[in-house]
Parts: sequence; C-alpha cells; structure tokens
Amino acid sequence: MSKQIDDFFKNIISHAKEYGFVFPSSEIYDGLSAVYDYGQLGSELKNNLKTYWWKSMVQLNDNIVGIDAAIFMHPTTWKASGHVDGFSDPMIDNKDSKKRYRADQLIEDKIDRYEQDGKSDKAAELQTALDAALNADDLAKLKTLIEEHNIVCPMSGTKNWTDVRQFNLMFATQMGAMADGAEQVYLRPETAQGIFVNFLNVQKTGRMKVPFGIAQIGKAFRNEVIARQFIIRMREFEQMEMQFFVRPGTEMEWYDKWKALRLKWHLALGPDAAKYRYHDHAKLAHYANAAVDIEYDFPFGFKEVEGIHSRTDFDLSQHQKFSGKKMQYFDPEVNQNYVPYVIETSIGLDRLFLTVFANSLVHEDLSTDEKQDSRVVLKFHPAIAPVKAAVLPLTKKDGLPDKAKEILARLKLDFNTQYDEKDAIGKRYRRQDAIGTPYCITVDYQTLEDNTVTIRHRDSMEQERVSIDQLQQIIQDNVGWTNLLKQLM
Amino acid sequence: MSKQIDDFFKNIISHAKEYGFVFPSSEIYDGLSAVYDYGQLGSELKNNLKTYWWKSMVQLNDNIVGIDAAIFMHPTTWKASGHVDGFSDPMIDNKDSKKRYRADQLIEDKIDRYEQDGKSDKAAELQTALDAALNADDLAKLKTLIEEHNIVCPMSGTKNWTDVRQFNLMFATQMGAMADGAEQVYLRPETAQGIFVNFLNVQKTGRMKVPFGIAQIGKAFRNEVIARQFIIRMREFEQMEMQFFVRPGTEMEWYDKWKALRLKWHLALGPDAAKYRYHDHAKLAHYANAAVDIEYDFPFGFKEVEGIHSRTDFDLSQHQKFSGKKMQYFDPEVNQNYVPYVIETSIGLDRLFLTVFANSLVHEDLSTDEKQDSRVVLKFHPAIAPVKAAVLPLTKKDGLPDKAKEILARLKLDFNTQYDEKDAIGKRYRRQDAIGTPYCITVDYQTLEDNTVTIRHRDSMEQERVSIDQLQQIIQDNVGWTNLLKQLM
Repeated sequence: MSKQIDDFFKNIISHAKEYGFVFPSSEIYDGLSAVYDYGQLGSELKNNLKTYWWKSMVQLNDNIVGIDAAIFMHPTTWKASGHVDGFSDPMIDNKDSKKRYRADQLIEDKIDRYEQDGKSDKAAELQTALDAALNADDLAKLKTLIEEHNIVCPMSGTKNWTDVRQFNLMFATQMGAMADGAEQVYLRPETAQGIFVNFLNVQKTGRMKVPFGIAQIGKAFRNEVIARQFIIRMREFEQMEMQFFVRPGTEMEWYDKWKALRLKWHLALGPDAAKYRYHDHAKLAHYANAAVDIEYDFPFGFKEVEGIHSRTDFDLSQHQKFSGKKMQYFDPEVNQNYVPYVIETSIGLDRLFLTVFANSLVHEDLSTDEKQDSRVVLKFHPAIAPVKAAVLPLTKKDGLPDKAKEILARLKLDFNTQYDEKDAIGKRYRRQDAIGTPYCITVDYQTLEDNTVTIRHRDSMEQERVSIDQLQQIIQDNVGWTNLLKQLM
Repeated sequence: MSKQIDDFFKNIISHAKEYGFVFPSSEIYDGLSAVYDYGQLGSELKNNLKTYWWKSMVQLNDNIVGIDAAIFMHPTTWKASGHVDGFSDPMIDNKDSKKRYRADQLIEDKIDRYEQDGKSDKAAELQTALDAALNADDLAKLKTLIEEHNIVCPMSGTKNWTDVRQFNLMFATQMGAMADGAEQVYLRPETAQGIFVNFLNVQKTGRMKVPFGIAQIGKAFRNEVIARQFIIRMREFEQMEMQFFVRPGTEMEWYDKWKALRLKWHLALGPDAAKYRYHDHAKLAHYANAAVDIEYDFPFGFKEVEGIHSRTDFDLSQHQKFSGKKMQYFDPEVNQNYVPYVIETSIGLDRLFLTVFANSLVHEDLSTDEKQDSRVVLKFHPAIAPVKAAVLPLTKKDGLPDKAKEILARLKLDFNTQYDEKDAIGKRYRRQDAIGTPYCITVDYQTLEDNTVTIRHRDSMEQERVSIDQLQQIIQDNVGWTNLLKQLM
C-alpha cells in the first residue's frame, strides 16, 4: 500500500476507534481476524443507515415489502443456488511454510510488482493470462503461471507449491443432536436466497402483484481467505438486498430504473456526485444478463458500494427444480403463468458505513492571521448522525446545569441527545464536531432570564439565538426522515 | 399438549402465517427445525419492538449506550464465560432406535404421565430426585432414574440405553483457511459477552461513569436438542440485552430498580397487568446472586419473557483472568479501582414477539339481534403496529383512487401506509383489523367536494370525519414514539 492509502486507513481506523464507532472484535483477546464490532456511535450510525434504506425501500414504495429470514436455511437452498458447488476460491499451499494463499491474489501481487518495476508489458501479459485462466476455471493454468513467473511464498521464499484447489467460502456447522449424525447446515453467504425461498409465501399472503419487490437486511458470512482493508472485506458482514420481481422481457427497463434510483439514494446523503460512478461488470455471473456496480472514489481507487444485477429467472427456476414447488406467478394482465425475472439491488452495509464515514471525515484548517487552529469534523447528513443534539451548560454553576437538564429531558423523548458539562465550551463544541453532532445547544446566563439558548450549527459553526420552545421543531425539521425521503420521490 | 393449548398454537401459527407475520424457514424445502422467518408484517412488528426497546434504553437514558458486536467472537471468550465447559445438556441415546434424548426431559415426561395416571406421590418423588440429580450434575443418577422408573424410548419402546453424557449447545464452525488447520469458533450463544469484552473500549471512548449501561440487540444461537412450541424456543433467535455496570455493594438497589422499570416497559404497550408476574429463580446460575423472570400468562401457563439478573463481577473478572487485561474502573467518588458488578436485563425478542402477538389477537363477537358477525383483530399498541394507516377509496371509479393516492403519497413519507381498492369497504376494514392497522382512511364522494375523509379507529370501529390537512398530525400523535416513551420517564 502506498503511504497515502496507508495514512487514509490509519486516520479512519484511529478516528473510528477513538470515538467509539468501530472496535476490532474481541480486542481484549487480540481480536478476531476480519471481524469488527460497532461501538456506541457506530451502532447508531449503522442503525440510521439501515433505517434510511428500509424506509426508502419499504415505506416509500407501495409495491415493496420487507422480510427478515433466518441465517440458517435448509441446506438444499445452497445446492439450488450453486453455492455448494461453485462458491469457492482457488487456493494453493506452500509446502515449506505450510501457508495457504489465494492463487489469483499471488498472481495479482506479482502483476503489481511488475508495474512497480516498470515492466508494464510483462504486467499486461500476465493479467491477460490470469483473466483467461479464471474465466476458464483452469486451476492447472493458475499453477503454471505461478511457476513460470517464479512466484515465491512470502513467508518461506520457496517455490515448493501444492496444486491449486477450490476452497468453499461457506461456513458450515452441525445442527441437531441425532445419535446417527447431525445435519450439516451453512451460515448464509448472501441474504438474497432468504428472499427467493419466501417468494411464494410473500406473494400470496401479501397479495403482491408483479412487479413487486422484497427487501431484507441481515448478516451474511464468508470465510474469506484473505480479508483485509478494515471493514471493506469482512468474514461476518451485513447486507441490504432487494429483489424486484418483474415480467420476463421487462427486466432491462427495470434494471435501468433501479440503476438510476440507487445512485440517487446515495447522492441524497449529500456527497459530491463526482465521487460516484457506474462500473459495468466485465464478466457476468452465471445467473446474470446485466450487472453494474455503483462505485465510490476512495483514496485507493473506485470501489463497489452497491451492485445492481439482472439475475434473470435463475434463482427461482433453480428452487423450482430442487424443491418441486412451482415458483411461478399468474399474471392476469397477460393471462399467463411465468417464473418472474429478478432485478437485485445489493449493498454491503459495512462498506456503505465506511463510504459515509470516509466521505464525512474532514480536517478543517481554521487558522487566522493571529493563530493557528484546526478541527476534525464528521459532516454526516443530519438524518444519519448518531447524536442529533448536545445540550451544554456554559458553566457548571448558578443553576445552568439544571436548566440544561430540563431541556435535555424534553429533547431526548424525540432525539438521541447528549449532555456535556465538562471542559471549556469550545472544547465541547470540537468534541461534538468530531462525532458529527449537527446541533449544539448552549445554556447561558441569558437563558435564565428569557428562556432562549444559542444553537450552533456543526458545518458553518454559526450560532443563533432561539427560544427553547422552538428547539424541538428546528431539530425535527432537519434531522427527521421526511426531507431526506422527499428527495427520492 | 391439551386441546386448549393445541388450539392456541394452531390459531396463532395460522394467523401469523396467513397474514405474513411468521413463516417456517425454508418452507419450500419442508422447513428447518426450530428456525423461522419473519414475513412482510412480522419483520415490521419485530423492527418496531426493537426500536421501542432501543429508544427506551439508549435514547431515554443518559447513562446507557448501545453497541453492535459481531456474532463471531474470539474462542477464549467462551472459555472465560464458562460456556465451553458448562453450557450443555445431559443426553442419552437409545441403542435400538439410535435416537438421542435429553435425559431430564425423558424423566419430566414420565412425571407428567404419573400425574395423568393420578400417581401424584410417585410424580413428586421423581421430581425431587430429578432436581437433586440436576443440582449435583449427577449424570449417573439420571441414568439410574431412567432405569428404575422403566422409562422406554418412545420410538423403539426398549430400555436399551447408553450412559448419560453432556452435549454442548454451542454451534461450532471453522474460520480461516490455514493449511495447518483452521481455528474453531462458535456462534455466540448469548449477546451478553459481546458487551463484556467491549467494556473497556466503551467506557473509555464514551467517557462513561459508573453506573452506566451498554445495550445490544442481536442474534444468538443454541443447538437445542428438542426445540418446540413455535417461536418460544428456537435454535436461531434474537436477544435484546443490557448490562448495567454498578459499584460493588449497590447491586441490589439497581436490581430492584431495573426489575420495576422493565415490568413498566412491558405494561406501557397496553396489556392487562394481571397477565404479568415476577418469578424468582429457584436455583441461581453460578454467576448470579439474584435473578427474577418477568413472566406472561400464556394459555399453557406463565412463561419467561424477560430476565433480570444480578451477575456480580463474574464475567468481567473471568475476562480479566483469561485476557490479562484489567477490567476495572477507577471510581473518583470513592477514590478506588474495582471490577464493576453487573445487573443484566435480557429479553428473547422472538418470545416477546409471541407475547405481544398472542396478547393482541382477539376474536370479537359483533353479532346483533339481526345477524351474526365477528371479526379477528390484532390490537397492537399503535406505535408498534406494522402498518400505521390504510388509504381506501370507497369505489374504484370517479377519481376516488386518484384522490386516495394523493393522500397516500403524503402519508407514506412519514408512516408505513397501505393502499387497498379491492373488495367492498367492510371487507377491507376487516383485512386491516386482522393485521392490526390502527387507522383506516376512507376517501368518498364528499372528499372530492370538501377535502375531508373518514378516519376509522381499529379498536372502537368508530369513524369520524376530518380534514385531509389534519391527517398527518392525528396519526403522528398516536403512532409516534413520544407518547409511549413519556410513560417510562
């Protein structure tokens, strides 16, 4: 990693930890690789992102409903979906170090080194060969490339390699306690299948008419061999997926609609539109006839934040085949039974969290001719900010704390509100800036006389004097969901 | 099960399925034992219960924050907590049928049969012996009881039993892909430990002062041998737990406070107070010095809905011992370092869901002298109702649907709102009653003239005429969280 990228991650990780957004999982036991815990502010931000998505999908759309399917599913689900046979990475072991690697990543690393050494031709040639081998699922060719390009184990430094083998990424466990053997089940590697197997139940009990969608938020698990880059690739992660069922032949029209709608959703949170782009998949998955990523411009390049996939009737047809149940819909408009086609929108919630966090974290130089000054501020959209307001008595005496607590008691019925009386007021403002609180309400001596307070705006740092009676409404108008959702209609 | 209990479950399960609240998991593959999916209305109800709990814990209490820790934790966590060694059930196999049973449940079933046969003395005697054996962890004694009381395998009918052995209830899986062996990790059997291992991180980064609490909602997993009674005992379930850290010696005072507060929380949703009771644990867990359940009166007897446990300093001390990190707090008020004591409040969310569902489901006889009539209605508290309002044009013509959709477009920015134009208006009202929608808004011919609609109240079935402009406020005042939360302050 270059120094710039390294600094970016250090900065993000340290701010996320220092202010209780993200902690390494089980940190007192030195952590668990590629697993993270969300702290007291991270859990609020994550919840707010979920709420925004859920409201925009389920509440705003008359023809989309949500479900919450279990992580455990019947194991045949994963035979039908292709995960038992096909959800794997090509792995190779070094016999000397006993370490295991993803064969394609070893080759990618070699390509990077060719680039760094100015050998662009060799890099391009190896990239082409790698792509061809991956497209053909040619494991022997991957090994040949590793040998021909003298790729050595980073630990042992030797070329004493095993053959390349496929390694399934699903976590398996044993369910039940039958004497004659428990049943092997998997932790779902994607939430989508929970939607497909419930297609008939939801369509019938919800009296849904095609086109309609089913949305779901939930955990998924992948035993990634090399999980890295903080919360970008985790072994336990959360997805927000929506499967939209359409009449066959209309899927490209809906694909285009969802492509546009989903970008609009990200932009409504306020980031610079130039930070986002569409990226068509070069290689389509076996079930897809079109696929695009919405990518965000991280310091280490554009990275996927959301995928929109035209999954055809692959999944429902497979479940029809494996379950023997008709996964069909009778469409009265065309007087026909069919297996619906599916447009999927799929977000990795943890990656979305990182995108929003990275995009909001700003170091501002506030220096004047007189003195040097700066602040760190998280410029979250107010609707997703973990803490909506902080109530701050100017001093700890003369009844100011009591008055502040009165205001707090009223506001906290509606908003996540903090109270802080420690340190000078300026320091407290900066503390709230660093966690992204949009409003600081300061109780001062004038408050005791006329029931007014100052309200300080996070981004402009401007303060205005308002009556205590107006506070609830001012905050509600800005942090409520209504304005944000309105932008999507 | 008695017929009455059987009917209760049949009624609940069928209503829950018919209206999209709860489906058997992977039903097209004939389900997965003791795992359920929440459908389009169940997921909304469950989300609302989570939101109510989270807001009441985190938003209302200045000294409680939330976290969202991962399901995967470092395996040493479960050594420290005692789950690796102690979280198990006594199992026995029948050598003829190859079936495995929980030894204590076989004996419980025998006790029930003694009772049914009028042999109360024998039942009482066996119960006493069973309790003694369980208290002493005496597996040999359990086997002796099975043999002495001639308990046979329900499948084979024989007494050809193995010894009784302990069977751990944690689901295990392999993480990582090291050539020299992956690491065995567990799916957490409780969310509480995710809070304990994050104690230092949250206390320090959140600048928390004892007493303070950490709340968490999340999945937990237990490989129950015999899981039954719908969503009362599941293998994959969700918990809402809060650990409240206090100064040693003050724990009983906080235990009493939380005991009272938690009952108040359940009652604020509106059920009859007589349906609830406290039940002190007869036998305390090894880590507890006081424990009580809040129980709900189901047709099959009082059952735990929430537990309040005084867990002492057991967990933090164990993590201190196993991690080598000081799990302590410096209390400036007493100028002393200590391991805090803990009061835990713990809800099984799925069981809470069932409680609320069972308590709300009412069959009302509406018969008059003229005709027989009845309705099924889910009398949810409006704040947790899955759908807040339904907009219904009286007829499908004359522009009424357009007018109704205008109203829908405005309301759905704020509330989960349905639109329904199919069938006679009375039938539509009953459909909304059956899913617990508090308000039906009917657009009729007068609406086109004076911009008023009728609003029908679910419980009273009374209708009033109001201006369209008032709708948002009327609904907000009743379905918003503010009134519900106010009752807890």
